[in-house]
Amino acid sequence: MCAELLSTDSTAGLPAYQQIARHFASEIRRGALRAGARLPAIRSLAAQLGLHRDTVALAYEQLSDQGWVEAQVGRGTFVRAKGLLAATIAEPGAALPGDPGSSVGSVPDGDVELAPQVEELISLGNTRPRYATGEDVVALHKLIPDPRFYPIEDFRACMNDVMTEDGPSLFSYAAPEGDPRLRRALASRFGAQGIAGSAAQLVLCHGASQGISLALRLFLSPGDQVAVEVPTYANVLSACAGLGITAAPVPMDAEGPDPEALDRLLAKPDVKAFYTIPSFHNPLGTSTSLARRRVLLEIARDRAVPIIEDGFEMDLRFRGSEIPSLAALDTSGIVVLLFSFSKSLFPGIRVGSISARGRALEGLVALKHATDLSDALPTQVALARFLESGAYDRHLATIRAMLRARHDAMDQALGDFMPAGTSWTRPEGGYQLWVELPFDLDTRDLLPDAARAGVLFSPGTLFMPDARPSRAMRLTVSCAEEDEIRRGVAALGDVASHSGAALHGTGRAGGMHL
Amino acid sequence: MCAELLSTDSTAGLPAYQQIARHFASEIRRGALRAGARLPAIRSLAAQLGLHRDTVALAYEQLSDQGWVEAQVGRGTFVRAKGLLAATIAEPGAALPGDPGSSVGSVPDGDVELAPQVEELISLGNTRPRYATGEDVVALHKLIPDPRFYPIEDFRACMNDVMTEDGPSLFSYAAPEGDPRLRRALASRFGAQGIAGSAAQLVLCHGASQGISLALRLFLSPGDQVAVEVPTYANVLSACAGLGITAAPVPMDAEGPDPEALDRLLAKPDVKAFYTIPSFHNPLGTSTSLARRRVLLEIARDRAVPIIEDGFEMDLRFRGSEIPSLAALDTSGIVVLLFSFSKSLFPGIRVGSISARGRALEGLVALKHATDLSDALPTQVALARFLESGAYDRHLATIRAMLRARHDAMDQALGDFMPAGTSWTRPEGGYQLWVELPFDLDTRDLLPDAARAGVLFSPGTLFMPDARPSRAMRLTVSCAEEDEIRRGVAALGDVASHSGAALHGTGRAGGMHL
Repeated sequence: MCAELLSTDSTAGLPAYQQIARHFASEIRRGALRAGARLPAIRSLAAQLGLHRDTVALAYEQLSDQGWVEAQVGRGTFVRAKGLLAATIAEPGAALPGDPGSSVGSVPDGDVELAPQVEELISLGNTRPRYATGEDVVALHKLIPDPRFYPIEDFRACMNDVMTEDGPSLFSYAAPEGDPRLRRALASRFGAQGIAGSAAQLVLCHGASQGISLALRLFLSPGDQVAVEVPTYANVLSACAGLGITAAPVPMDAEGPDPEALDRLLAKPDVKAFYTIPSFHNPLGTSTSLARRRVLLEIARDRAVPIIEDGFEMDLRFRGSEIPSLAALDTSGIVVLLFSFSKSLFPGIRVGSISARGRALEGLVALKHATDLSDALPTQVALARFLESGAYDRHLATIRAMLRARHDAMDQALGDFMPAGTSWTRPEGGYQLWVELPFDLDTRDLLPDAARAGVLFSPGTLFMPDARPSRAMRLTVSCAEEDEIRRGVAALGDVASHSGAALHGTGRAGGMHL
Repeated sequence: MCAELLSTDSTAGLPAYQQIARHFASEIRRGALRAGARLPAIRSLAAQLGLHRDTVALAYEQLSDQGWVEAQVGRGTFVRAKGLLAATIAEPGAALPGDPGSSVGSVPDGDVELAPQVEELISLGNTRPRYATGEDVVALHKLIPDPRFYPIEDFRACMNDVMTEDGPSLFSYAAPEGDPRLRRALASRFGAQGIAGSAAQLVLCHGASQGISLALRLFLSPGDQVAVEVPTYANVLSACAGLGITAAPVPMDAEGPDPEALDRLLAKPDVKAFYTIPSFHNPLGTSTSLARRRVLLEIARDRAVPIIEDGFEMDLRFRGSEIPSLAALDTSGIVVLLFSFSKSLFPGIRVGSISARGRALEGLVALKHATDLSDALPTQVALARFLESGAYDRHLATIRAMLRARHDAMDQALGDFMPAGTSWTRPEGGYQLWVELPFDLDTRDLLPDAARAGVLFSPGTLFMPDARPSRAMRLTVSCAEEDEIRRGVAALGDVASHSGAALHGTGRAGGMHL
């Protein structure tokens, strides 16, 4: 029931708890669940769906608010009698059951107009697949560091120490640019990677995701265009949609973004920046060559168009030799570098940084202040302490080794199980890689079969600026160990082969003879 | 030297550390500080300026990066010999001394175009006064809860507990709407204040300041207008500028915003929302009457224009009886309510919430996700624990009593020391009040004299959508105890009276006979 529960079209795009609430509301409406019937225990349903118990609790609370069910202390949650339900619904202006986010009490949803960019965002969200990650499903779609590796105890100790030592100053407003200690620690790490710039040029932000929003707003107005790689990070497309910005596609070749295409784009007056992920590209997993990086910088400098470099996995190289970042190669001060701890440590503390110069730096500080004043000091200072203690470097060594082993297992499994003609990338860092099937199909169509077969992936179309169908998919090694990876890819190979066979009468067999 | 150091026009609008760096750079340039001269010790200069030591350290580091000074271990920071300096500066592409945010190494500031809204923000920032809050200055300009009251130990314990108990799930991504526990705790508090709505309708955000940005983006596109009160919260004007939104003024009378003026504005198609602070208005300190609140809701409902209600101090009533919030009175679901812990607890954790319904709720979740994915879970969960423990309510009782005493002292002092004809508001909650002088002057012009006399305030012009001059000023009781308030207002009365005398040959004497 879980898979269908979290993937019904009618609820796609809604928060998980609302999808759950709607599912049960409709089950009750159509009589599948009768008065007095007991809903699954919160704990077991949560485990079944791979969700936090509070999410399910929230869904049940909403159903109760709406009069569908009632909680009986110590016994569980039960479907209410029709009469009771009717009575509840009949209250003046009472919320309609199953209404997304509908209210308790007597207030209807207001009839107000949303900004067109927001309407755009909502419909964009509705096109995203919803995943039900049950216990037994191999999650090759997740780009979240493996929670099994989080150095929580070290971080907890740092947080506890700084809260004990720093006192009130830790709980007041930070400067918009953030805590000087963390900025200095980051600047010296960047310096060691050849990136010139003092702590004064670093603005801390709310993960690289806020960094993307701020960097886009720094250079672009609604109606402007930003050049992006094809494929590119899915959420940068959401950020653009939310800001009324258009993403202009730059094709990728083996070396990185195509220079001619980029130059043609940057020549256009309304293309105001170039967003790129040169190291451990998302979703490709590849890295732009050193020679190509120099060419890209030349083009941007000649066109006087800034480059937004997303270094979200720059600390995660596990093989091969370092390629200097664009920020390190930049001699004209046009690169804005985004950094994040979300993939190299854990995402939950929401800390990232943006490096900029001169007017761009001034604008960034003003923009950060106007957007949310500043970020949370306790987290920043605890993280600075964590870095200074060496715990971050120790952690990096651990997960780099983990990444190497898992990518090797992935490469091996893809060779063993995918259909003949399948191609894939071999990253030297990060979590993600790109797999292209030899069949003319939209991998989005494989998702339901794959989920049933016990494996999940991200269909390539999610990463296309124009949402075009794609025969490729993004896989990650972040939340699956070697044996799980092998099991997941075997299942994926089956599904792909069968679809291939259905299309061309070939497939599995061919796949076996790689 | 501190006051002038942090208020030179040439550095206004720059971060404090850059103002400090620029000050010393120019002192060295003009020979006032010669080679070998020792800069003030970081600790003492920081104390003198009322800044954190790291801010001064950052300034010295920038000066060192730029070749002006060198740190000698254990001895201090010294001005470098001209030769050395020249050599440093002469390096290819070396940063120019005193350049705001200029880089170390060999990278110049890039020549890139910023978005016009960002240029607007920068110039807006440059018009803001810079304050040097030395030890002896009474800070009646600060709207930051008094650090002496922060319940740090209770919060530290909650943070430590949840980090110990919750494990990895606490350090992963939250849902865009935030932690269900904190949302439930907030929803039940709101419910107790008559605000209908379940936890499902609450989206947690990064302080009410991010709430303002998100709520504006939810309803307005660049070029649209938002109706705001005159005067209004200064940072909402920055938020508008950064989003390319125009603030349309609604005059205030004794009851609140003027209904006719509001109706005329909301009739315009490009006025897409009304931003209001009905309780403990910032900067006025007054509250909109119950009758007027109902009228405002009617107008907004008839015009189908949403109301953004800023409840940033709604938990801080210390006198008089509760007036239901617009969200509590709303029967048509058009009110979006902003809440924040920044003033009722402490700002450093950056937690606030937005309540919305239906499509607005859906849009809000999509917008939050596209902006920064989600907020930090550890802080949200620790805060939920803090609320459940009763520590928040205990804290509210303490600071409400503190606010009552300080406002009484303020009211008394204003009567004793301000010139005849001065009028001021008598808030029933919150930190701020509004003082209007009987003279035809711009209170901005009083600031330097006031700073010299040992008191700081916020000139009224800061809160005017059109930045028009104002004879009023905002005072706060947040960071001054009763005796400090009395001392500060006495000094303020002197300064005001002398300016009044200069203008009209009246003043102090009259002020004494109130």
